[in-house]
Amino acid sequence: MTYCLAIAIDEGLVFSSDSRTNAGADQVRIYSKMRIFGVAGDRQFVLLSAGNLATCQGVIAQLERDISDALPRSLLSVRNMTEAADYLGGISIGQQAKHTGGGVSYEASFILGGQIGGEPPIVMLVYPQGNHITSSDDTPFLQIGESKYGKPILDRILTPATSLDTAALTALVSMDSTMRSNVTVGPPLEVLIYRRDSLNLDERLRFTEDSPYLRQIRRSWDDLIKQAFRQLPPLAWANAKEQAAAKEPPAAAFNATFE
Amino acid sequence: MTYCLAIAIDEGLVFSSDSRTNAGADQVRIYSKMRIFGVAGDRQFVLLSAGNLATCQGVIAQLERDISDALPRSLLSVRNMTEAADYLGGISIGQQAKHTGGGVSYEASFILGGQIGGEPPIVMLVYPQGNHITSSDDTPFLQIGESKYGKPILDRILTPATSLDTAALTALVSMDSTMRSNVTVGPPLEVLIYRRDSLNLDERLRFTEDSPYLRQIRRSWDDLIKQAFRQLPPLAWANAKEQAAAKEPPAAAFNATFE
Repeated sequence: MTYCLAIAIDEGLVFSSDSRTNAGADQVRIYSKMRIFGVAGDRQFVLLSAGNLATCQGVIAQLERDISDALPRSLLSVRNMTEAADYLGGISIGQQAKHTGGGVSYEASFILGGQIGGEPPIVMLVYPQGNHITSSDDTPFLQIGESKYGKPILDRILTPATSLDTAALTALVSMDSTMRSNVTVGPPLEVLIYRRDSLNLDERLRFTEDSPYLRQIRRSWDDLIKQAFRQLPPLAWANAKEQAAAKEPPAAAFNATFE
Repeated sequence: MTYCLAIAIDEGLVFSSDSRTNAGADQVRIYSKMRIFGVAGDRQFVLLSAGNLATCQGVIAQLERDISDALPRSLLSVRNMTEAADYLGGISIGQQAKHTGGGVSYEASFILGGQIGGEPPIVMLVYPQGNHITSSDDTPFLQIGESKYGKPILDRILTPATSLDTAALTALVSMDSTMRSNVTVGPPLEVLIYRRDSLNLDERLRFTEDSPYLRQIRRSWDDLIKQAFRQLPPLAWANAKEQAAAKEPPAAAFNATFE
């Protein structure tokens, strides 16, 4: 599996992805799932991919071929991000349709984010069916792959006003939590920050398992969570019971004890 | 959907469940998913259920009927928890087989935990196929239903040496995180603590959405998580980059920029 996420906030965009692919427990490999395309000062795209690896690579190859062949329609020519997502959706459907059988799924999902000229930066999720949704102020992040483990921390922290650095940290913690709980998601982790209107992608980092910074984040977060737990109001049973009892039906009403 | 979890630690067992059931967005109802069975001083069982509601209710009804009809095989007669889980698995398969069609799944999963006489307390997960797995020191918790959102916090906190009160708090936080991230999981939340060798189930709490204690936990945890974030080592890009660069291939090797 895979876990990728993208965050769209006032200051810009944050992208993060893991690098583990597997086709069975004895076919675990490392592939970057983050691909960047851009022309400095004109347009920048970040593509995250999840799903069938051959489909993902086929899609990326075609995106690159359409550019190098100078086709009329490519990431270089699309006028806005919606057009880019439609174009990507079409390529994805085409690649998926090339192969059938074998009892495997050829589906792939993509997150495409970036900025074209003076248009606002945005993040889009392209479904295997080729359609897409965008980020919004109420939904400042989009995820693909193993998205559930790392969602609670994003729900708690992210708002449009979150700073890029905090958002990038949130992404790393979300990634780390997912890695701990699911072995199909693994390092290296990649994080990329795009500053609104910079039209340049220069802040990209890759953390291997033994990256000192990643280890430091992991250890600190673990300690901080444990400290936080110690500061929670204790489960004072008698007291809590009293509070609960005032509002609840008597125990007999929901207990099915027999003696 | 549903989210239920059970924790088996040195001091005893903790059970927790949500109460939301749904069959489509206009059929959202409240049902307790925690059922207790026991004879004080002899044996105690806690049953958590997830899946098709009719199947779950059918299983519970049969467990109760087998007891009231004084059948030779019932929760009153099983000699150990493995036998109890096998018996429950058989009933579950029988109930599922009664109904077919309609394009819905009749599957159900169960967590059965408790203690019989001098046997050690234990927790078991009974799959829809009727087979089961148990908790262990390396796997001190089992989950059914929407289990992914709330797993990272359990992975971080729980060990066999965790106290019952901390384990119960962990369960509440895991429940709360899941409720925030998935609307199919909802209050009231139930938490039950079983103290090893007590052979009594007296510490059961039920928290509605406006329970003062649940609100306090929710607010405190949210504040503590945000505080914890502020204490993380800042994503000092230059510095982190330097650390990462020392161990990584040069940027060109993994960037697919074109200009």
